Amino acid sequence: MIYLDNAATTRPLQEAFSKAAELACHNFFNPSALYRGGISMRGELERARASILSRIAGEKYELIFTSGGTEADDQAIFGGARRGNAVTTLGEHAAVFRSFQELKNRGVETRFAPLNRDGSVDEDALLNLVDEKTSLVSVMHVNNETGAVNDIQTISKKVKEKNPRCLFHSDGVQAFGKLNERLGTCVDLYSVSAHKIGGIKGTGALIKKKDVNLPPLIFGGGQEGDKRSGTENVLGILCFAYAAEIVFKELPANFERVKEIKKAFADALDPRYFALISTMDGSPYLLSVSARGLKGEIMQRLLEEKGILVGTGSACSSKKPHSRVIEACGYQNEVLDGVLRVSFSFETTKDEALTAANAMNECAGALHERISRG
Amino acid sequence: MIYLDNAATTRPLQEAFSKAAELACHNFFNPSALYRGGISMRGELERARASILSRIAGEKYELIFTSGGTEADDQAIFGGARRGNAVTTLGEHAAVFRSFQELKNRGVETRFAPLNRDGSVDEDALLNLVDEKTSLVSVMHVNNETGAVNDIQTISKKVKEKNPRCLFHSDGVQAFGKLNERLGTCVDLYSVSAHKIGGIKGTGALIKKKDVNLPPLIFGGGQEGDKRSGTENVLGILCFAYAAEIVFKELPANFERVKEIKKAFADALDPRYFALISTMDGSPYLLSVSARGLKGEIMQRLLEEKGILVGTGSACSSKKPHSRVIEACGYQNEVLDGVLRVSFSFETTKDEALTAANAMNECAGALHERISRG
Repeated sequence: MIYLDNAATTRPLQEAFSKAAELACHNFFNPSALYRGGISMRGELERARASILSRIAGEKYELIFTSGGTEADDQAIFGGARRGNAVTTLGEHAAVFRSFQELKNRGVETRFAPLNRDGSVDEDALLNLVDEKTSLVSVMHVNNETGAVNDIQTISKKVKEKNPRCLFHSDGVQAFGKLNERLGTCVDLYSVSAHKIGGIKGTGALIKKKDVNLPPLIFGGGQEGDKRSGTENVLGILCFAYAAEIVFKELPANFERVKEIKKAFADALDPRYFALISTMDGSPYLLSVSARGLKGEIMQRLLEEKGILVGTGSACSSKKPHSRVIEACGYQNEVLDGVLRVSFSFETTKDEALTAANAMNECAGALHERISRG
Repeated sequence: MIYLDNAATTRPLQEAFSKAAELACHNFFNPSALYRGGISMRGELERARASILSRIAGEKYELIFTSGGTEADDQAIFGGARRGNAVTTLGEHAAVFRSFQELKNRGVETRFAPLNRDGSVDEDALLNLVDEKTSLVSVMHVNNETGAVNDIQTISKKVKEKNPRCLFHSDGVQAFGKLNERLGTCVDLYSVSAHKIGGIKGTGALIKKKDVNLPPLIFGGGQEGDKRSGTENVLGILCFAYAAEIVFKELPANFERVKEIKKAFADALDPRYFALISTMDGSPYLLSVSARGLKGEIMQRLLEEKGILVGTGSACSSKKPHSRVIEACGYQNEVLDGVLRVSFSFETTKDEALTAANAMNECAGALHERISRG
């Protein structure tokens, strides 16, 4: 099997999982308990927290563990946008996009910035939406469908120049562990997820500037410095930290290697059948293409029969007929119908990628032939 | 080691965990993905959902997986109490109690019913607080500190008689998998947790009547029938279902056996040193006692040196000097200082319990001697 849907979820890194499972099953105590086992697990959680945080942020930041990227996005948005207006982009993941729709019900005006053709946000248009009443701006770091990278350091700086009191949040789920970038000084809130980098599903984190005051989304026993209650997901948190350790160790080298794989893959696609939606300067880990005039789901099924797994846009929105995001990039139905999302991991080999590209050519060719025959 | 803090968390059941881990690591696909692996994992999740739900509720109910009991409580409370007033008890876990405090900030009037001496709610007083403007009543099933059982079937029925439009929620975290009771017809919302019955931390569920309309707490990709977004915690959910299968198989027999263990333990405690807070008609799994005139934390530490782990009230609130709940039962400082929570699992043996009771007598005796010597 060649697995090229790593943006949906990655295979858990066995080494990280085994280590975490062994520790969590052996020291199963509640980390709030006051006896040795509890205290020692509390120490492990704090080490995991510091370790993950250190990968991309300095001492001005802290980290709140959540049940995943979605909860982190929700906490940032509902906690940060409580008055005036809130600004985001048309390219956001449903976790941000749906939360913005809910903001409307809560009396916050919402504004959506348009996208460029590659899925990145139109920066000027975004900045024009920000005014003195904007309480939060949310711009994803890497688009989860096209891989387009938004320059959140620059954007957040410009947002702050227009309105220094406005909070800046970024959904970093597809960037963390992949891009060689640290948070600058103007990003207040940043969401990350474990299962996109070899951890397991059910754990994520909201990284936040210490001096930013953010209410909890979940109230209770006061865990996570009273910012997120509920008994800690010990296994998920430890596995997240161990997985981050592995992916960050070789991050720059992986970036370069996967970049070459993406390029080789794109070059190998037959231009008679496929149009690239992603550009080569986006994240190397993501490539959206369209099998023009064909149906993405049918391509996906044919590829599966050849042992190749690809996505058809965001897995979280897989029930919708078209990708809202690719549509916002300015594409029409002929392209939208045929969208396929190919997403690599640092474990993907060039051979796998080329085998997959050839299979895609074959499947598209066969389908076109079938259509032309009637 | 004799572990008697099972109300804080239980040791994961190895059989349930191994089976879940094998499946989740092998079929690691996103359950929203449209290829076979994703669809098959979606099937596993639906089987887990039906299996857990069937343990205590019929076809009028559905189940939403959450990140734990706390999130389930929060969703029930913030989703259910959106106008007028909301009524709860002074005995609630922090997940409910703190959420009620937050309700006040959101413009909902909150009302707290007093407790009886054993920690159960004063039913008449509770019902007197319910009026035509009450949107939600929340009464825990089993008190997590004293083990007192509230008759939620009767209470919810009486609440509905006073106000048929009022929703009834119960925190069932310490009851699920322990009491031999199914939800009646008047409980609208019921919270459960995996790691209190041999599952792992980070998973729980909100069981809800299908005809009850409840908004999400977490918005995003539309998982869980759009009631709770975020990629599903596959490992935690599967492990929850397998653990429930194990504990429910022998539930009535375990109940009787642990009831005897609790009685034997209570009988073995030296009445010169210990006052029982819990009564024998509460949950067999929980026994709160007070080492009168001593400090619970010191007793806890001495017991740990003998290899015996007990709690000092709710693990989630372990930083507070006194238990808010035991105080609400009407006890004064002399008792409050010495509170110890002893909580059994279905794996606890009578020998372990008696060894622990004797150790408690020894520790208390030694401390009193030290005090009387000055």
